[in-house]
Amino acid sequence: MAPQGRPSVVPDDGLTTRQRRNRPLLAVHTGDGKGKSTAAFGLALRGWNQGWRIGVFQFVKSAKWRIGEQTVLERLGELHQQTGEGGPVEWHKMGSGWSWSRRGGTEEDHAADAAEGWAEVKRRLAAEAHDLYVLDEFTYPMQWGWVDVDDVVETLATRPGRQHVVVTGRRADPRLIEAADLVTEMTKLKHPMDAGQKGQRGIEW
Amino acid sequence: MAPQGRPSVVPDDGLTTRQRRNRPLLAVHTGDGKGKSTAAFGLALRGWNQGWRIGVFQFVKSAKWRIGEQTVLERLGELHQQTGEGGPVEWHKMGSGWSWSRRGGTEEDHAADAAEGWAEVKRRLAAEAHDLYVLDEFTYPMQWGWVDVDDVVETLATRPGRQHVVVTGRRADPRLIEAADLVTEMTKLKHPMDAGQKGQRGIEW
Repeated sequence: MAPQGRPSVVPDDGLTTRQRRNRPLLAVHTGDGKGKSTAAFGLALRGWNQGWRIGVFQFVKSAKWRIGEQTVLERLGELHQQTGEGGPVEWHKMGSGWSWSRRGGTEEDHAADAAEGWAEVKRRLAAEAHDLYVLDEFTYPMQWGWVDVDDVVETLATRPGRQHVVVTGRRADPRLIEAADLVTEMTKLKHPMDAGQKGQRGIEW
Repeated sequence: MAPQGRPSVVPDDGLTTRQRRNRPLLAVHTGDGKGKSTAAFGLALRGWNQGWRIGVFQFVKSAKWRIGEQTVLERLGELHQQTGEGGPVEWHKMGSGWSWSRRGGTEEDHAADAAEGWAEVKRRLAAEAHDLYVLDEFTYPMQWGWVDVDDVVETLATRPGRQHVVVTGRRADPRLIEAADLVTEMTKLKHPMDAGQKGQRGIEW
């Protein structure tokens, strides 16, 4: 986490250190352990502090529950509007239909919802709408064929400007791993549910 | 992350599900990958939103740099004071002497600083001063013998009330792992420094 790290290899890519340093990152948080989303929202917190325009897209089927991070990051987005601190925040979740969609919230076509979410993210990437995109649990629609993995990888690999993207979820596709700059696997060594403890407020959501 | 998880085993510990559910957690984020601290600060964000009293203790030798999370969490602590939203936040870092210490900032006795930090955390645990403690990079003073591991484990295992504790850092001591309820290992699968990219603002700090 400290900025004193030294590159172990200097690549022959024709870029200066500065160009390389400022290259936008595609990060993937995967594995069966906890902290994948939490660490992504932590990056959003850090980006907000830099004045970045934050866009969170939660590709979860059931988003009736609202996690604390959404409340706090949206509050920080308001703070930006009121005082100019930090950056603007948009938080969208699939649930039963995205907030920008005209379609009602009663249908249950999660595949169509996921495809629509990805289409919107593509439009925003083309428009350079955000500085950091959190595509939370986006590995699942990729895995289930609800979005085309090659299209996702091609779009992310060729995105314009300086847009950082973090994708979270288990079982990340090897093509996504290959395209990513930074991949972290969260592995569960020990979990309280193994000892019969259920999730609790403040820790799990 | 969703709260719908079912325990895989019901333990024979004489506790009701509710008692077990509300048991304070000792979590450890370890491994060589990224996201250990970021996920811990994400938990602090979530806890703040629950109105928890947050205490962050960064056991890092050089804390000249200030990470974005500190700025944002301290800002949230101010917001709590102004509006009553969320909870209070204290953020302390070792650097060259803790903020509560009367000793000057010129000396270089990191071992003494670390021991002093732990002594303060012990006092606060006894006083039930915080609802969530982030002991960031605390595995290092444990590893280097600056604090007594058995004392740490015994203190954490017998802490009173409902105080959650998250310890981060590489090479967590097996005794700490044993005492913990939740242990996540962050493993680096791929890192931009491997490709000669240096850390960058907003991503690394």
